[in-house]
Amino acid sequence: MSLSQSESTAPIVFETDPGRYRHWRLETQGESARLVWDVKETEPLRAGYALKLNSYDLGVDIELADAIERLRFEHPEVRAVAITSGKDRVFSAGANIHMLASSSHAFKVNFCKYTNETRLAIEDACARSGQRYLAACNGIAAGGGYELALACDEILLVDDGNSAVSLPEVPLLGVLPGTGGLTRIVDKRRVRRDHADIFCTLAEGVKGQRAVDWRLVDAVAPKSRFDDLVRDRLAKLAAGPARVASAPNASVPGASKRTGHGVKLTPLRVENGMDRWRYTALEVQIDRRRRTATLTLEGPEMEPPRDAAEARRQGADLWMLRLSRELSDALCRLRFNEEEIGLLLLKSGGDPERVARHDTALEALAREDWFAREVVLHLARTLRRLDVTARTLFALVEPGSCFAGSLMEIALAADRTYALDDPKRPVTMILSPLNFGPLPMGQGLTRLQVRLLAQPESHEALRRRVEAGDLPRFDAASALAAGLVTIAADDIDYEDEVRVAIEERVSLSPDALTGMEASLRFPGAETPETKIFGRLSAWQNWIFQRPNAVGDKGALKCYGRPERPSFDWRRT
Amino acid sequence: MSLSQSESTAPIVFETDPGRYRHWRLETQGESARLVWDVKETEPLRAGYALKLNSYDLGVDIELADAIERLRFEHPEVRAVAITSGKDRVFSAGANIHMLASSSHAFKVNFCKYTNETRLAIEDACARSGQRYLAACNGIAAGGGYELALACDEILLVDDGNSAVSLPEVPLLGVLPGTGGLTRIVDKRRVRRDHADIFCTLAEGVKGQRAVDWRLVDAVAPKSRFDDLVRDRLAKLAAGPARVASAPNASVPGASKRTGHGVKLTPLRVENGMDRWRYTALEVQIDRRRRTATLTLEGPEMEPPRDAAEARRQGADLWMLRLSRELSDALCRLRFNEEEIGLLLLKSGGDPERVARHDTALEALAREDWFAREVVLHLARTLRRLDVTARTLFALVEPGSCFAGSLMEIALAADRTYALDDPKRPVTMILSPLNFGPLPMGQGLTRLQVRLLAQPESHEALRRRVEAGDLPRFDAASALAAGLVTIAADDIDYEDEVRVAIEERVSLSPDALTGMEASLRFPGAETPETKIFGRLSAWQNWIFQRPNAVGDKGALKCYGRPERPSFDWRRT
Repeated sequence: MSLSQSESTAPIVFETDPGRYRHWRLETQGESARLVWDVKETEPLRAGYALKLNSYDLGVDIELADAIERLRFEHPEVRAVAITSGKDRVFSAGANIHMLASSSHAFKVNFCKYTNETRLAIEDACARSGQRYLAACNGIAAGGGYELALACDEILLVDDGNSAVSLPEVPLLGVLPGTGGLTRIVDKRRVRRDHADIFCTLAEGVKGQRAVDWRLVDAVAPKSRFDDLVRDRLAKLAAGPARVASAPNASVPGASKRTGHGVKLTPLRVENGMDRWRYTALEVQIDRRRRTATLTLEGPEMEPPRDAAEARRQGADLWMLRLSRELSDALCRLRFNEEEIGLLLLKSGGDPERVARHDTALEALAREDWFAREVVLHLARTLRRLDVTARTLFALVEPGSCFAGSLMEIALAADRTYALDDPKRPVTMILSPLNFGPLPMGQGLTRLQVRLLAQPESHEALRRRVEAGDLPRFDAASALAAGLVTIAADDIDYEDEVRVAIEERVSLSPDALTGMEASLRFPGAETPETKIFGRLSAWQNWIFQRPNAVGDKGALKCYGRPERPSFDWRRT
Repeated sequence: MSLSQSESTAPIVFETDPGRYRHWRLETQGESARLVWDVKETEPLRAGYALKLNSYDLGVDIELADAIERLRFEHPEVRAVAITSGKDRVFSAGANIHMLASSSHAFKVNFCKYTNETRLAIEDACARSGQRYLAACNGIAAGGGYELALACDEILLVDDGNSAVSLPEVPLLGVLPGTGGLTRIVDKRRVRRDHADIFCTLAEGVKGQRAVDWRLVDAVAPKSRFDDLVRDRLAKLAAGPARVASAPNASVPGASKRTGHGVKLTPLRVENGMDRWRYTALEVQIDRRRRTATLTLEGPEMEPPRDAAEARRQGADLWMLRLSRELSDALCRLRFNEEEIGLLLLKSGGDPERVARHDTALEALAREDWFAREVVLHLARTLRRLDVTARTLFALVEPGSCFAGSLMEIALAADRTYALDDPKRPVTMILSPLNFGPLPMGQGLTRLQVRLLAQPESHEALRRRVEAGDLPRFDAASALAAGLVTIAADDIDYEDEVRVAIEERVSLSPDALTGMEASLRFPGAETPETKIFGRLSAWQNWIFQRPNAVGDKGALKCYGRPERPSFDWRRT
């Protein structure tokens, strides 16, 4: 096993902006935009491999994720986006194999998770922000290249006798397509199971009319007419009805009215210390000895914006957006740069009543204003990023804490919540409208629904109170009674209780905890999103570990070498 | 890695009967029954470990699976079953750790799959046969012991200050509870996520009133009143309304009317050759060089029974029941005893028109007769066993084949179906009422619905024809057009096409194929059953492979030794 990326070199940075893109160009024109990938072969994130044929690594995907976010916030006028290649005859060769083959198991898994989140962000924009995506495959789209296309609403493929779409991971590399390909072809595109089976074992892929017949792409056109087809379809997507919000976000409709100027996503403000980073609304403190990180989230210092115009003026400084961007960045850093930190302690500080006022204001504004809506959707994505983070989450509700509404979601996302029950220094938790729909988990339920799965009538009673404007408030004891905290302990016991829980937790097998948490966090029906992070990721993690893939004679290791892989044939 | 069980010793046999049970006693009395487990410590399936404290191995579970089947067929009068322990102070310590620690990866995975199928069979009996199960935990129920209880409708726990339910796998062994425990506590019993988190990391488990409060058990009683409580609840379950069929089986209602004598499950008749086994309606031919097995299923020789009485007289000789029991047995043997066989070629022979008549007769009888209904439900379970078998399935539709109705499900379960399209020797495929509901997959859809997921209107048209008694018939070409076969090739090409497909398939990484097939076979929503075989199994497979569990200093290897496990702390 090679050294992990984080061991070998400097920490990975997740911030970028279009001025610094090395691999993508973002071009907007009226209601449509083009995202052109043109990967610089010589600029991989880490030395040791070349990004040939628009193959990608994490650095390429960080730019893509950034572009998708900016399209939503900075370009509200854009209704349709075409992703296309700046290279001749190749759309993308997918994730770079030499990068994968030389990465640690942990890095491979976290790389796949990040790229999956990026593709889900495209689908989120399509479904909830009225920005439709079109994959204009002007050349071969292999593996992760085709998987990116699968995340788009429509896939167009040039019909030049050569350009095919393919998922060659199984036949060529002995691993799975790791970015949702298997799930999306049968679940999203409803490719027939037997066709999918052939397709996923055919290294050269499928091209031309057969790709259309098998539902792998939506249309093909010869090279001479391909640009016209793309222009045509892009205009139709831009002119078409924006999709209405799907059920989980039903309380935040209004995607189609995206008027006015965009909001610039200004650089994050962060002081980086040795084992401590301070953003504006979040502090991360690493304790390497205990292998924990304490994340302290700060409530807003100011009252909420009075109207959409004021929110727009605050822009990226709006508390909820700042908090969400900072938390998202911190989670990415922790995943990649702090692999041994197994337990995140989630704390908060500030005025919970003010958070409730922010939530109430934003929820109301989001009904009419696209920016407020985007802020809530951003927080929803960040919270889902927290849900699928393979670290234990303990929330600590202590005096001065601020677990209300949007911040209460942090506590509800936790595997456990500990509250100090001291009548002299009471804590206050508040439920706001944002706890009842706009911030759904991946399976479509809210975290409060999951928490109260066995007491739907209690959930319904709380929902009705919030709907009537009567936000429920809890101290430690009543939160315990309502099922919102796991343990409430008095002044004498609290510290010991938490200390022992932390010590026990960090002593357990990190792998078993990852599997356990992934299995306990998502009760209820599964969706393509939870299938990708549950079923597909778990199979991939397994395969990434098997000698048949990563052993000296495994398929992933042998790729590009003269020798053929050698397999242990036992089927499990 | 130790030798796999199949390498080290004689093949595992999956047939047994109550007269030969070593670990269980099946006691029936009127409408209720008791299944008493009293594991013989000195009679493990393989030498090398002792089955202390009612811990179990595959041999114990084979007897349990047999008892559950016999209760349904041989004891139709039984309405409620109590599973209890014949040992003092211990219900079960779960799967035997020393057996697990000394088993190959493949054996562990297949062991978990088999035990999961057994527990799902309990839930199937509860949901569809009006036989309710009660776990009477008269002592400690740990790990797999508690997971067996979770498969029952009700869980009672003795309150003696000592007896607890627990899932200690994560804290003690560094692996997951592998028999559906994680899924069932949050999904089936709706234990709160944070309580589940504590419970699953607490080696000593939870007892007494807290176990009730946390929904881990339904009731507790002190030792002096425990037997009364069990008797009481068992009588109530027996007297209560039998559950009606759930939606997937809506067309086979009538569970409650279970009158008349039981049907004896007579021993399977099988000639065992070297690489060839012949049952009465199934032949298995192993080709070790190609790593394939050809399963040839035979249609019925006789016309269907004219009425329920005749079906009852035929009993275990009824074609559909024979076929289903034989196929189930063959799949178990292949999984455990033939690990390197990666591809199953599914063929059939006989008169497809006669199969259609059998199906039509059985489907009609099943509306009123419990035995006919049990036959259909048995076949449904066997087909689900086929769906989750980690081998590639190719169906071959050739002259003389018999892919109609119930046998057509075999072709629809396959990853691909090849048909010979030769006008001089035409093949006939027929859809029967059994293709439209009574044989659902684990996610609740029929295999035909999955096949036609993108053409629901085509599915609906076929359904209406069958409902009107007009069974659709297809030759190779029309089956291809209807989406029922993958490839139809003429006389000149067929043999080459199939040969090349087989050669290519058996050359691919067996691990990647397992992950791919598990991801492509189950489009549509997920259910607890598919979560268990997809999400949970995949995570467990991964963990079973990790040094943190199975390395020399892994938790599973260290269990019972003086040294403590040593972990690689990187979280993935």
